[in-house]
Amino acid sequence: MAKQLNDKTLDKQFDFLREIDQLKSVIRKSPLIDQSRKENSAEHSWHLAMYALILKDSSEKEINIERVIKMLLIHDIVEIDAGDHPLHETIDNSLQEEAERKAAERIFSLLPDQQGNELKALWYEFEAAESNDAVFAKSLDRLQPLIHNVATNGGTWIEGNVSHEQVKQRYGAVIAEGSRTLWDYAKGLVNRYF
Amino acid sequence: MAKQLNDKTLDKQFDFLREIDQLKSVIRKSPLIDQSRKENSAEHSWHLAMYALILKDSSEKEINIERVIKMLLIHDIVEIDAGDHPLHETIDNSLQEEAERKAAERIFSLLPDQQGNELKALWYEFEAAESNDAVFAKSLDRLQPLIHNVATNGGTWIEGNVSHEQVKQRYGAVIAEGSRTLWDYAKGLVNRYF
Repeated sequence: MAKQLNDKTLDKQFDFLREIDQLKSVIRKSPLIDQSRKENSAEHSWHLAMYALILKDSSEKEINIERVIKMLLIHDIVEIDAGDHPLHETIDNSLQEEAERKAAERIFSLLPDQQGNELKALWYEFEAAESNDAVFAKSLDRLQPLIHNVATNGGTWIEGNVSHEQVKQRYGAVIAEGSRTLWDYAKGLVNRYF
Repeated sequence: MAKQLNDKTLDKQFDFLREIDQLKSVIRKSPLIDQSRKENSAEHSWHLAMYALILKDSSEKEINIERVIKMLLIHDIVEIDAGDHPLHETIDNSLQEEAERKAAERIFSLLPDQQGNELKALWYEFEAAESNDAVFAKSLDRLQPLIHNVATNGGTWIEGNVSHEQVKQRYGAVIAEGSRTLWDYAKGLVNRYF
């Protein structure tokens, strides 16, 4: 219910909502399933929120699905400043983490203080990948590109010379941590189609 | 928590999740704020979910924000079959509604029965625009393109020869129904910048 919002609060909220429009221009390595182009991080975030909504019963641990969805909606916003860095790329992780932290500080600070701090905390929780909600969110973030790669006959795995064994290694641990059920299923797809 | 999901359940869920990838190829009339291209309906759905998350305290009626977010995540999925039809276009509404209903039947029926029926019910609730959650969701769906049009010096209003008064008429009632606060603020933007 409306809590006496003043124009200054709304100014900040709309500054943030305009700023994050740029996530639509951050291009990922993964293709759309019809291979017409690469996916961007905004539509990827929508797709992941849908993954959470549809696959929520696959988590073996107790999760709060609404928190998982919120996490996935905001998880890539830092890429507006820090860019997208795919799994199979070799980069300096500590530099990348520093860039993402700076981005989180800048972008979430556009919001009114309390709201910005809440979302920043949620983003840090996702990054830490320790809470059940974060572990399940990370698992879906790893699963969705696997599904796209399988559906496009190897997709970025072929481009990046990633072997069948490497696929299982790089995806398996993270997906299985969030859901053994989903990893068993995904492994079956990889075995059959890649 | 995992409810004995079998592979058939997962097959259906992944069929749906692959199918809705096509929403990324439904192009809307609204431009991105940087005007580099038009927005697609998947990234628009993400942006609206973020609008809900950020602006939830602007609703004057009691709402369940998690339901509003879910509604907004799925509200445009029917466009995969029925296309996007912008506000200022003249179309046969009953034909369009029929096409959207058919699309909802087809697409949500890809899911396991109970899950498909739940999402279909949520989509019908959004379309009916009667519950507080649906009214607020509809209000945000009308507000976001207004913000983009204001930020791009008139955007689709200029293209479509839409007058200042028509803007107030076509956006005002729907936005104000969900939030008088947001409409007062948006009207201020229109008065200042268009």
